[in-house]
Amino acid sequence: MKKGSYIFVVFLFAIFVVIRLGDAQAQPKISEATEACLSCHGALHPGIVAEWRKSRHANVLPSEALKKTKLERRISNEKVPDPFSKTVVGCAECHTMNSEKHKDAFEHNGYKVHIVVTPSDCSTCHPVEVQQYGKNLMSQAYGNLMNNPVYRALADEVNGIKSFERMKIASKSPDEETNLDSCLYCHGSEMKVKGKKSRNTSMGEMEFPVLSGWPNQGVGRLNPDGSKGSCTACHTRHQFSIEMARRPYTCSECHKGPDVPAYGVYEVSKHGNIHSALGKGWNFNSVPWTVGKDFTAPTCATCHVSLMINENKEVIAERTHQMSDRIPWRLMGLIYSHPHPKSPDTSVIKNKAGLPLPTELTGEPVVPYLIDSKEQEKRKTTMQKVCLSCHSQGWVDGQWDRFENTLKTTNEMTLTATKILLTAWEKGAAKGLAQKDSLFNEAIEKKWVEQWLFFANSTRYASAMAGADYGVFANGRWYLNKNVQEMLDWLEFKLLSLPEKKGKEKERSK
Amino acid sequence: MKKGSYIFVVFLFAIFVVIRLGDAQAQPKISEATEACLSCHGALHPGIVAEWRKSRHANVLPSEALKKTKLERRISNEKVPDPFSKTVVGCAECHTMNSEKHKDAFEHNGYKVHIVVTPSDCSTCHPVEVQQYGKNLMSQAYGNLMNNPVYRALADEVNGIKSFERMKIASKSPDEETNLDSCLYCHGSEMKVKGKKSRNTSMGEMEFPVLSGWPNQGVGRLNPDGSKGSCTACHTRHQFSIEMARRPYTCSECHKGPDVPAYGVYEVSKHGNIHSALGKGWNFNSVPWTVGKDFTAPTCATCHVSLMINENKEVIAERTHQMSDRIPWRLMGLIYSHPHPKSPDTSVIKNKAGLPLPTELTGEPVVPYLIDSKEQEKRKTTMQKVCLSCHSQGWVDGQWDRFENTLKTTNEMTLTATKILLTAWEKGAAKGLAQKDSLFNEAIEKKWVEQWLFFANSTRYASAMAGADYGVFANGRWYLNKNVQEMLDWLEFKLLSLPEKKGKEKERSK
Amino acid sequence: MKKGSYIFVVFLFAIFVVIRLGDAQAQPKISEATEACLSCHGALHPGIVAEWRKSRHANVLPSEALKKTKLERRISNEKVPDPFSKTVVGCAECHTMNSEKHKDAFEHNGYKVHIVVTPSDCSTCHPVEVQQYGKNLMSQAYGNLMNNPVYRALADEVNGIKSFERMKIASKSPDEETNLDSCLYCHGSEMKVKGKKSRNTSMGEMEFPVLSGWPNQGVGRLNPDGSKGSCTACHTRHQFSIEMARRPYTCSECHKGPDVPAYGVYEVSKHGNIHSALGKGWNFNSVPWTVGKDFTAPTCATCHVSLMINENKEVIAERTHQMSDRIPWRLMGLIYSHPHPKSPDTSVIKNKAGLPLPTELTGEPVVPYLIDSKEQEKRKTTMQKVCLSCHSQGWVDGQWDRFENTLKTTNEMTLTATKILLTAWEKGAAKGLAQKDSLFNEAIEKKWVEQWLFFANSTRYASAMAGADYGVFANGRWYLNKNVQEMLDWLEFKLLSLPEKKGKEKERSK
Repeated sequence: MKKGSYIFVVFLFAIFVVIRLGDAQAQPKISEATEACLSCHGALHPGIVAEWRKSRHANVLPSEALKKTKLERRISNEKVPDPFSKTVVGCAECHTMNSEKHKDAFEHNGYKVHIVVTPSDCSTCHPVEVQQYGKNLMSQAYGNLMNNPVYRALADEVNGIKSFERMKIASKSPDEETNLDSCLYCHGSEMKVKGKKSRNTSMGEMEFPVLSGWPNQGVGRLNPDGSKGSCTACHTRHQFSIEMARRPYTCSECHKGPDVPAYGVYEVSKHGNIHSALGKGWNFNSVPWTVGKDFTAPTCATCHVSLMINENKEVIAERTHQMSDRIPWRLMGLIYSHPHPKSPDTSVIKNKAGLPLPTELTGEPVVPYLIDSKEQEKRKTTMQKVCLSCHSQGWVDGQWDRFENTLKTTNEMTLTATKILLTAWEKGAAKGLAQKDSLFNEAIEKKWVEQWLFFANSTRYASAMAGADYGVFANGRWYLNKNVQEMLDWLEFKLLSLPEKKGKEKERSK
Repeated sequence: MKKGSYIFVVFLFAIFVVIRLGDAQAQPKISEATEACLSCHGALHPGIVAEWRKSRHANVLPSEALKKTKLERRISNEKVPDPFSKTVVGCAECHTMNSEKHKDAFEHNGYKVHIVVTPSDCSTCHPVEVQQYGKNLMSQAYGNLMNNPVYRALADEVNGIKSFERMKIASKSPDEETNLDSCLYCHGSEMKVKGKKSRNTSMGEMEFPVLSGWPNQGVGRLNPDGSKGSCTACHTRHQFSIEMARRPYTCSECHKGPDVPAYGVYEVSKHGNIHSALGKGWNFNSVPWTVGKDFTAPTCATCHVSLMINENKEVIAERTHQMSDRIPWRLMGLIYSHPHPKSPDTSVIKNKAGLPLPTELTGEPVVPYLIDSKEQEKRKTTMQKVCLSCHSQGWVDGQWDRFENTLKTTNEMTLTATKILLTAWEKGAAKGLAQKDSLFNEAIEKKWVEQWLFFANSTRYASAMAGADYGVFANGRWYLNKNVQEMLDWLEFKLLSLPEKKGKEKERSK
Repeated sequence: MKKGSYIFVVFLFAIFVVIRLGDAQAQPKISEATEACLSCHGALHPGIVAEWRKSRHANVLPSEALKKTKLERRISNEKVPDPFSKTVVGCAECHTMNSEKHKDAFEHNGYKVHIVVTPSDCSTCHPVEVQQYGKNLMSQAYGNLMNNPVYRALADEVNGIKSFERMKIASKSPDEETNLDSCLYCHGSEMKVKGKKSRNTSMGEMEFPVLSGWPNQGVGRLNPDGSKGSCTACHTRHQFSIEMARRPYTCSECHKGPDVPAYGVYEVSKHGNIHSALGKGWNFNSVPWTVGKDFTAPTCATCHVSLMINENKEVIAERTHQMSDRIPWRLMGLIYSHPHPKSPDTSVIKNKAGLPLPTELTGEPVVPYLIDSKEQEKRKTTMQKVCLSCHSQGWVDGQWDRFENTLKTTNEMTLTATKILLTAWEKGAAKGLAQKDSLFNEAIEKKWVEQWLFFANSTRYASAMAGADYGVFANGRWYLNKNVQEMLDWLEFKLLSLPEKKGKEKERSK
């Protein structure tokens, strides 16, 4: 390389350095309190601090963020209270916010710090999102599971410990740690201050509150300040990258298993495989999100949450953290699919048989608690606007007809399984409602659960999101049919053994 | 930053802008008809139009594309008919092509437009690929399923609706929408014009044809112009990115479920994990595709489709859209693996027992319809040339021996299951061929289906593509063995209940 | 574009070319022997050679690599023997290393070349890693499976071929090829020279050794030089990219199936989804690996293997190829979880009942062979240092308590299944230890295996790595409970049939 070239390259490099230094000098102000946090925690937890330094929270002053146009704004409050608008959003800003409401707040190096940052804290800057989220079924995910006796009984059957003695299986209620490690990981924990604990730290002896249900980032978490939910379930700490919330992987954390295989279905859908193949070049960080320019196929967030515009800056879909305002039908989590419930708190629902379910055991919807067809039509129209940004009305109609037909047929297949179960209860082959026994503890009951919770759900998701592969042999229609046959075989074997069994039982259990 | 640096940066930026403008001016010509389409649809469906703008179709004139060297050409026609070679390939070029043959063509704003673009349309520029694809089993995927009574019966068992009454399960044939949402999503639909529909649009009232079987991009689609197949199954609309067709995700859309777990196996193979870890830096867009330079491990397309060369521009594998010319054995989709069928239309095959299957129920191949060992050897050699570009002959021989041994052992395990099923039929524990009953409706028959369709298939794929993890416990050999044991247990329980059952049945069904 | 701009751009391009040429001239020296290899194999196997050219082996002289600081060094030997330090590490350097010890070495074009490069060969430059790996359970994966009669019997049940005649299932031992295609793919093969074979090559007739068990890259491979293991299981040939070893996909090759679903769990964990969404921008190539700067969430390697530092260059975790020094508990692969075994060779263990298992059949640990609680504490502390680089002690304690509780509850659920199995053996419904029958061949025994090998394992992994979705309905607690119920049902059906069965059996088998 010639000397002249070297000089030129050095010159280019110098410019680069100058520009970077310029950038660095523009680093917005960090509050004194946050500086105090960083002085220790930067060394103690370098990973988490480095993440935060990459975040918008660390790099944009709220007062600057407020200057954006309405469509571009990421802060939904009209104004941010004074002390917070002039420094970046750092450790102290969130972890000392509203500390008077926080039962988990504690004295820490001269600050009153709380462990769990909650939607109430986030609503200082993001009130609209928090309010919308309050109408989202997910914000009630703890109570909808734990305060519904039918669902609680299912959870107990999943998490409880069985023992075996004298040809009988006995059940123990699940311990708290198991619930936390299982259902409540996604549904959210009930977080309470259990006591205090002293710990030797590099700063000497220090005292910390001990929380039950911690760690947890579940969507319906009951927080120590009385609020519900956890924004960080999707807006992963401490980078709070909008790219991360928009990528489908985040949703997969709770929506991949056979009970709710949304991510698995997405992966084999055309949308999912466009994302997998070409998504590396998309812009996941722009607000608003422009279809065609920023991305060319939807992720979960596109259809269910994000503010989406076209290149003329016309709004195609408004941002929603309620989500259900784009969803006419409830596909999953219950025995039959049905119109979406009116209230996110579903523990209030009672069917004619007195069960806390949005349909009868035989599938009829419990109308007073569910949205009507007009509201369904409205939500369908809202969702279809997203579809129509890439597809013709004829395409969308065809897809939607197929999907609603699948809701009907999967409900029929669930009804068939239910009838076999009801027969088993009636003929004494299994113990059910009439015997005040768990609906979920016997083998035929577990097969019944799989009929709706796994196979009907998977088939519906595959249809809704056009990931057909998942609705045929991978937990789909094949199993809907096979399972019904096996339920009947079980019932027949059991019925044959009933009279003999009773006689023999005495002998054997001696 | 100093003033001088600013000036310099602005100067660099100006150059950049000038270069980009230069590029933009070079934008090749769009036909008047396509401009007319874009004038409305650009606003109506911004996503799809933005995709197209990124495509080669939108950016390269056919006449320019024809100037490439033979190896580099993406157009297989020697000449492109005149009106099409001078403008880019836009909306109108494809959607008005051969409209006289298209039953789905309709008057639309002064143009005769058709909805479904077909292989016949694509063959204007890509005739060799379309012709090769006609020899591909996939082009016959509709008829091979729907016109084969055995396979149709299996599809009916998957998609039909069951009801339960008086201890009996009754079957209803599947409705059309369910077939479309299930098997035909991948196999392809039969597309017919059902009628016309008026719709209020932003341009006023307009009339559109209504198609049965729409939307659908299945590989064996029966098109409204009489052609078969859908290029867009793999060459995803409207970017038609070759990267997308070459990435394995595209294949996963139809090849991931337990019946054909090619993608799942690829993911745990060494090839798949090289792609996952390092593939982000590969060149998926170059034609021809140079091993080592463009990529260092194969994706599905590398082994099965693509034109592959080495850095000396020597051809290692010719491009093929027939695919079977590199495949000696048929692994999947049928009861036993066997030499590849001669004709892609397998509905013509009949075995000695009169069943439309390429083997007897006990596994013997139906020789006249299958390729001979010489043809198998030829195809094996073609495939191995791909392997040898990274592996020694010793390695390849070892891998291939193991794979062919696995074909043999999985066939043996299928035969064992078949013998249990035949015994069940013989002893009256289930109803089969002799009773003219479905081969697929009883529990033991469903287990038999899983033996070959899930477990033998998975084991063979795991072996073929060296994703061993999938052939052991994930739907592999573990289940081949477990399933046989459970089939026998079922048979024994059923046989014991037979005499008693008949007596009791009357009582119970009263 | 103006003429001046063109000139400027051409000037910039020229500089770029000059820089690149400068780089190219600095290409370090390739040995004469390696040049000889490349002269043919570059054309024969272009893929593999291109991979190597991208490797550090091809681009950095060992003598240069030795000059790095201790933390940055990738070579653990203090000195590299002379001929090897002055040329890059090419074909000949590895494939002719220690050829006198290699039974697979053969005369090839004037060189004594061996096929299989082994840990002993790699230890020339990387002795510390090879020595550590010798203490890793994985290095003994062949013997721990094949020399343990209980485990060998399980492998035989997975891989053996069943036949069916006169209402009986008979078992054939698996053939060698099947074992290689199944368990030994990951565990490693026994590699022996079976003979020699002549082959026509482009260089004329040549003779090559034929190896049993080839190809294979299993972690416990028995090599033709007497060493154990295969570095290339993780450090994929021939690029040996550290990025590849650190990406989680590499581990998925053997750790994804239901028996050891580490990768599946990682994918739905928060760590996994951070990696999926944001990992594209991380630096996977730097040594040492700096938390926060190079990456912001762990992959498999971060927690289990890598040398990790903070931005002050303080070591958080030392590099380990033993891995178990960060692992107090053994989660997988055995009936109950238990403290890690002391020796990587587990075939030496015997429990009180004389079985080669680290616990009794009823779960009590076989203390003398397992690490004590002090050693467990030490390993836990080592692992937790990794956790603490992003999480508080309170978080880590909460996570760890939950995990150890899950070890306890999954052991309880396994014990319940074991008691049902023991009852089945006792009552004659199945044949077990007392009857000297396989523990794994009957349906109830297979269900028992799934209880621990699939369902308890999955639940533990889900807990350990906080991928809860996997521990509930996806092969987790749901199945732990369902399986116990189905085992009891099977036992009851079987017991009922016992007396009658014996009478009927004679008739039927006539």
